[in-house]
Amino acid sequence: MAQADKPIGIFDSGIGGLTVFQEIRRVLPRERLVYLGDTARFPYGTKSPATVTRYSLENSAFLLKHQVKMLVVACNTASAYSLEVIRERFPLPAIGVVEPGAKAAAAVSGGRIGVIATEVTVHSEAYPKAIRRLNPSLAVFSQACPLLVSLVEEGWLDNEIARKITEHYLANLRKSKIDTLVLGCTHYPLLKRTIGEVMGEGVHIIDSAETVSQEVASLLEGNGMLRTEGEGESEIYVTDFPQRFERVGRLFFGGDLPAVVQVDLI
Amino acid sequence: MAQADKPIGIFDSGIGGLTVFQEIRRVLPRERLVYLGDTARFPYGTKSPATVTRYSLENSAFLLKHQVKMLVVACNTASAYSLEVIRERFPLPAIGVVEPGAKAAAAVSGGRIGVIATEVTVHSEAYPKAIRRLNPSLAVFSQACPLLVSLVEEGWLDNEIARKITEHYLANLRKSKIDTLVLGCTHYPLLKRTIGEVMGEGVHIIDSAETVSQEVASLLEGNGMLRTEGEGESEIYVTDFPQRFERVGRLFFGGDLPAVVQVDLI
Repeated sequence: MAQADKPIGIFDSGIGGLTVFQEIRRVLPRERLVYLGDTARFPYGTKSPATVTRYSLENSAFLLKHQVKMLVVACNTASAYSLEVIRERFPLPAIGVVEPGAKAAAAVSGGRIGVIATEVTVHSEAYPKAIRRLNPSLAVFSQACPLLVSLVEEGWLDNEIARKITEHYLANLRKSKIDTLVLGCTHYPLLKRTIGEVMGEGVHIIDSAETVSQEVASLLEGNGMLRTEGEGESEIYVTDFPQRFERVGRLFFGGDLPAVVQVDLI
Repeated sequence: MAQADKPIGIFDSGIGGLTVFQEIRRVLPRERLVYLGDTARFPYGTKSPATVTRYSLENSAFLLKHQVKMLVVACNTASAYSLEVIRERFPLPAIGVVEPGAKAAAAVSGGRIGVIATEVTVHSEAYPKAIRRLNPSLAVFSQACPLLVSLVEEGWLDNEIARKITEHYLANLRKSKIDTLVLGCTHYPLLKRTIGEVMGEGVHIIDSAETVSQEVASLLEGNGMLRTEGEGESEIYVTDFPQRFERVGRLFFGGDLPAVVQVDLI
């Protein structure tokens, strides 16, 4: 198979990465996409770096069996801890969601950036490090928001409870007078409206799904691997419970998903 | 080693089972207890029956290597789906948390029982079936409460958000005029006060940890396996992230935990 015709492999701890999948699909409609959601071991955001890395390597190995031409780590926690190891271990380009998000934030910020993420991603300091590498004068304020993932999975995106929880988590960032807020977990874009309302006008909200798809496009173009014809087929695999994935996945997808197939990684 | 001196093996998907561990410790202070929290794959309440059963069998096999004399499945989801398979597969007594909870509820109810649990436990209908086997005239109303587990793990037990979420989930059960409410997930006892306030006086709150420990005691006594001397040593194992387990575990334990050791099951 010609390199360009090979699929892009995308993995996430579960459903959240569909926000990335969908943006790549929108920007690159001809590409073949293979998505793996590790729903049997979801969530990653409360697990140790070593465990997250072990799971990430197993996910990558699964996608490599599908002849992917590049890997997208569509999970912030996995990107924060495992991207370097994946790049060392596998002979193909791999991009995560942290660097593109950091880049987008650094590009628009007037000086004060907030980052919301899972507790493990916050602990990694991946965003502050990536942002300061781009511009050491930027101040970065991080806030772990453990409940937001469950909130999105429950489908509570703009009710009173969603609003209260969001207000609670964002209170310190509002006091810190940030001008830019990075949504450092692929579940959070579904709460974008509520988060935007709580932060108020004038705060840039950065959804890394959007910038990741641009990075994917330029990486493929730069390597002569862009697919220029074809139907843009999609394959979606999960490690557990395809029915639940299809049901919750509609929230992320804004419509029915392609068929979801259950697989065993180990 | 004499049968009585062997430990009781307890497993849960994570931290929630410590409510059961602690009750068994209180009722049977001389017993040796070995606890396994499968934190690398937590939570079970959103996963498929087949996956929950695979994990439960691996957890049981781990405990058997520690020479346990009986197994306690301290997770409602695992009890609902996997207890029968565990009993078939392993040659030792095993008890779960569903039957003791159902028994306690049936004993005090005037006719209308509510059950709150994870979505998978509710889907199993394990509680309604167990309660109706005891007394077919009892009406059972179930409510899945997916966010409550994360709420407890976040340590929000009686703030305004905990109250709002609890009110939301319990609204239908209040309309159903239940007289008894089963806490069908080992995380929920930490929300007992908030749940009690929302339900109002006159509703019995059933925490199966209490009844399970009675069942364990009578099973051991009936089989001549009760330990009558000794210090009541405890061993706690987790499949991931002992630091997080120790931190959140203090909520369940009301104090410091015994040392927590990380193990690989596979």
